[in-house]
Amino acid sequence: MKVAKFGGSSVADASMIQKVAQIILDDKDRKFIIVSAPGKRNDSDIKVTDLLVELGEKHAANESVDTIKAKIVERFQTMIHNLSLSSAIVDDISESIDQVLMNPSIKDHRLDSLKAMGEDSLAKILSAYLQSLGEEATYINPRDAGIIVSDEPGNAQVLDESYEKIYRLREHKGIMIIPGFFGFTKDQKLMTFPRGGSDITGAIIAAGVKADLYENFTDVDSVYCVNPNIVENPKEISELTYKEMRELSYAGFSVFQDEALIPAFKAKIPVCIKNTHNPDKEGTMIVSERTEPSSGTVVGIASDRGFLSLYVSKYLMNREIGFGKNLLQILVDEGISFEHAPSGIDDMSVIIREENFPKAKEEKVMKRIQEELEVDMVTVERDLAMIMLVGEGMNSTYGVASQSTQAFANAGVNIEMINQGSSEVSVMFGIKEERLEESVQSLYQVFFEK
Amino acid sequence: MKVAKFGGSSVADASMIQKVAQIILDDKDRKFIIVSAPGKRNDSDIKVTDLLVELGEKHAANESVDTIKAKIVERFQTMIHNLSLSSAIVDDISESIDQVLMNPSIKDHRLDSLKAMGEDSLAKILSAYLQSLGEEATYINPRDAGIIVSDEPGNAQVLDESYEKIYRLREHKGIMIIPGFFGFTKDQKLMTFPRGGSDITGAIIAAGVKADLYENFTDVDSVYCVNPNIVENPKEISELTYKEMRELSYAGFSVFQDEALIPAFKAKIPVCIKNTHNPDKEGTMIVSERTEPSSGTVVGIASDRGFLSLYVSKYLMNREIGFGKNLLQILVDEGISFEHAPSGIDDMSVIIREENFPKAKEEKVMKRIQEELEVDMVTVERDLAMIMLVGEGMNSTYGVASQSTQAFANAGVNIEMINQGSSEVSVMFGIKEERLEESVQSLYQVFFEK
Repeated sequence: MKVAKFGGSSVADASMIQKVAQIILDDKDRKFIIVSAPGKRNDSDIKVTDLLVELGEKHAANESVDTIKAKIVERFQTMIHNLSLSSAIVDDISESIDQVLMNPSIKDHRLDSLKAMGEDSLAKILSAYLQSLGEEATYINPRDAGIIVSDEPGNAQVLDESYEKIYRLREHKGIMIIPGFFGFTKDQKLMTFPRGGSDITGAIIAAGVKADLYENFTDVDSVYCVNPNIVENPKEISELTYKEMRELSYAGFSVFQDEALIPAFKAKIPVCIKNTHNPDKEGTMIVSERTEPSSGTVVGIASDRGFLSLYVSKYLMNREIGFGKNLLQILVDEGISFEHAPSGIDDMSVIIREENFPKAKEEKVMKRIQEELEVDMVTVERDLAMIMLVGEGMNSTYGVASQSTQAFANAGVNIEMINQGSSEVSVMFGIKEERLEESVQSLYQVFFEK
Repeated sequence: MKVAKFGGSSVADASMIQKVAQIILDDKDRKFIIVSAPGKRNDSDIKVTDLLVELGEKHAANESVDTIKAKIVERFQTMIHNLSLSSAIVDDISESIDQVLMNPSIKDHRLDSLKAMGEDSLAKILSAYLQSLGEEATYINPRDAGIIVSDEPGNAQVLDESYEKIYRLREHKGIMIIPGFFGFTKDQKLMTFPRGGSDITGAIIAAGVKADLYENFTDVDSVYCVNPNIVENPKEISELTYKEMRELSYAGFSVFQDEALIPAFKAKIPVCIKNTHNPDKEGTMIVSERTEPSSGTVVGIASDRGFLSLYVSKYLMNREIGFGKNLLQILVDEGISFEHAPSGIDDMSVIIREENFPKAKEEKVMKRIQEELEVDMVTVERDLAMIMLVGEGMNSTYGVASQSTQAFANAGVNIEMINQGSSEVSVMFGIKEERLEESVQSLYQVFFEK
């Protein structure tokens, strides 16, 4: 039993939907289908969800919504026409939009209902299309599927009680098409998930029905071992562990939001990243444990910009029980979450994402550290990039440290920071942001082009 | 104006005292002389301070002290005889011991008074010897010198008010001989300093009189760039900064307790480590700032055994504001001071000296971490060694990272942990204890035998 999720670019138009239908029918195990809203058909196109957000904003501002609504309806009309489906579906979509706009009871979370219409409409279209092919296919509303969520507009979290109900979907005959991106609160309010919403729905359904596999169809053949914007045609990764995926996603891997997959990870459902345009390619498997024992090599290089280092120095710091804790407490007080906090004898650095420590907070935090902790020095270095080498067991492989530092030396890049050993899955390097590309390229050469 | 301190091996017998006198007279600036108690004359010898401790223990246990007291007196007698000094000094020492043993008012800190007798007697002998040579030399009791300390037997801390009084010693004529290792509380109780006691006295006097130089005479020509028990005939360091010295002392450099020098460091008095047996050698200068701009190279390799790593892993740890702080709070609660705490995304390691985290505490701490922080995994890895490369500016020198990791690779040693960038003065490596020697040797080869 498989759960397959198709992303926005996989359902952007009628021809894509035909492709998706073919993929579904190619494997009888593909029983649960989750769809996103139609994405861009070309670079200058606009995603349906973005159109719906615009519609909502205009409506909230009491502006006319006629033009934007027409655009949305037209987009679905073309699709339905090209799929030779009944135009009653279009009328239904148009009416639903009006109902959402008019319903006074959803005023405080109207945007959620609007945003969800892309996915919801597409699920209806796909199931109608499969039916038109003579298949037993059913549109299932997330409410009927059993996706119960917290009352947090735009940031809903699935509730554990969902899973028992979802499990009962296994009894349902034929193919089920479920719109991604949203669920319902206990008192029936529609709420959307945060970023990566359709991935979340897929992961929830996969966990709930205890699927053998969660296939995540997107527009790349697989997860690459390095950011393809930095290295051309990088190697593909055939198998990753959850832990590795999480570390890779953390710093700049954008195939999907790793946290979207948490429900699947927690239920130990293997995930497969596949390409809708190239469904025969094996893709990348994400598993809880490697099928072959860990090779102990580097599986990927993740990198991201936008970090800063808060450096604190105090003579005899290491004699002061509680110093580290007190420093972190100040950050907690100020609502600043940090990434890493390596410490020396009389020094401590805290690595923070720039977005979490805006310049506006700097003066106050520096002053508090200076005065409350009586430090000798506190400085902030911005414009740092972090690079992570990822691979389970890699740290116990002799030579990874020397190979990686050699790669930086080859590129003439000075390493500001190394943090190895605190994670079993990764080694972190900090460098100046402007040297990111050449560093990653050099690491790629050393670890993947041997 | 210089302060010169002579360690135990420098004043072990009459011939050494003659050497010390010669050194003092060779430089008219050597006005303030601090002495330790006589150390070992050979490997099977016993330090006078250890004899005094034994005496104190026997006395406290109501055992006979005659034999041990005779041993101590004999030691000074031989010395005095060989220096052709009046035997009245011996009688004086013998009497002083009796007085300390009999005095009921010092019952709760009698050991301090006993331990201090080695230094005190030696200072009297040295000043008598200098006088016998026709020099203007005076024994100055720490009370008269102005060393006022806290009331902590065996662990006295100097009080800031001391320095004003000590400064007045500058007016005193001739050479002043001050016994190291002890001071007096405000209510005139004799208290000894913690480990490195004579070094502390020297540093206090140097800071108090605002000396141009604090010469620390010991039995090595200089500070070596690596532990001479690991590398034979290692290179000598001619100049070190305080910061470098502190990091070197931290992990296994045993020339002296770096914290003993704190008073001198705080007053920015340069310190020179010299050899009593070879006083013409330049020795090692320890300065607050390098005379030549930092070369940015490695000045020393420190290493020490007996560390452990407490590893904690929790899925989504980095989303949890305050996790790091909460973990360290548990350690603070349990009175465990830690050395470094590098963290990953979902992992955090805390490096602790084994002596600070005895096995007896392990179960409780692990349980608290498990239950209060709801972690996925918490483990302890013992038998680790830490190696530190030390050198100001080294971190910004391109290639140090690759050279050092290559050195480990050359030795076939896997690096468990790297912490670079949190200190501006050092890079820390963690390895398995049993691979310490070959790692240090390989690093020495790479950085000092090029």
